[in-house]
Amino acid sequence: MDLKSEIRNIKDFPKPGIVFRDITTLLKNPDAMKYTISQFKEYYKDKKVDLIVGPESRGFIFGSLLAHELHVPFAPLRKPGKLPAETEKEEYELEYGTDAIEIHKDAINQGDNILIVDDLIATGGTCEAAAKLIERLGGNVLGFAFLIELSFLNPREKLKNYDIFSLIEYKEE
Amino acid sequence: MDLKSEIRNIKDFPKPGIVFRDITTLLKNPDAMKYTISQFKEYYKDKKVDLIVGPESRGFIFGSLLAHELHVPFAPLRKPGKLPAETEKEEYELEYGTDAIEIHKDAINQGDNILIVDDLIATGGTCEAAAKLIERLGGNVLGFAFLIELSFLNPREKLKNYDIFSLIEYKEE
Repeated sequence: MDLKSEIRNIKDFPKPGIVFRDITTLLKNPDAMKYTISQFKEYYKDKKVDLIVGPESRGFIFGSLLAHELHVPFAPLRKPGKLPAETEKEEYELEYGTDAIEIHKDAINQGDNILIVDDLIATGGTCEAAAKLIERLGGNVLGFAFLIELSFLNPREKLKNYDIFSLIEYKEE
Repeated sequence: MDLKSEIRNIKDFPKPGIVFRDITTLLKNPDAMKYTISQFKEYYKDKKVDLIVGPESRGFIFGSLLAHELHVPFAPLRKPGKLPAETEKEEYELEYGTDAIEIHKDAINQGDNILIVDDLIATGGTCEAAAKLIERLGGNVLGFAFLIELSFLNPREKLKNYDIFSLIEYKEE
């Protein structure tokens, strides 16, 4: 199945010069979603994943679907102030300024093999922060799974110590 | 299975006097998640659902899981400015001020039977706005599914024209 044809390209969103890869057209097609999740499942089913972590908010969709299929726990990564129990926080740099993500401290068990799942990888800043956060809490980052990889932004450079699996690649904007 | 025991209660979050019902403990338990989704599926499997709509961001989890199980499309409801294609917007009142939600116009087909899924229903303000939005775009709101219903806030009053199915009820704060 040609998953790339399920993605809608929207020019100049959120700002001029950017082509936004819109996954809502994929979400509307249950056959394509079933295929997507089965591709992830096939790759990870024998890799002893103990926990899937997904960043808000589109990472919640693919992360929780794969967790359901692999029958493993799911833990949300959120913007600061959203998670109600005790959290660990990691800041990361944006083009202008900084941002941060948090996870519940009790989401991670020492030595757990953890897979981070998101819809899209761009520069890799958020993912690098997620890996640092998980490792600081004693988790073992098994790798990253993405629906879409914007390879022209070289995200694998930031994540070179990790296994990366993606289903759709864009080599240019 | 006693799903209520899978929910963590956190006092005074996000502000004093509120008991926050934390679903991250449920998300960590794949057996409980499997049971949750099977309960939703059992209730809706013969109800001819054409589309599931879920509000960001915890609604993405339960909405997309049930859409996957029923093999129907999923459409996200988001805060303004997040969805990249042409949207329809609905404002609604909060305790102080207003908020708004958006959906892609092309997410809704005329006459579609649409189920709205979220993790929790409190006063029902967001859900009432979601129903208005969907109906304005020609969709037929089949009903609402929630993991948690805060019945002491009387959400069914605002949604009295719709079928509501919830798995966990809290009769007091």
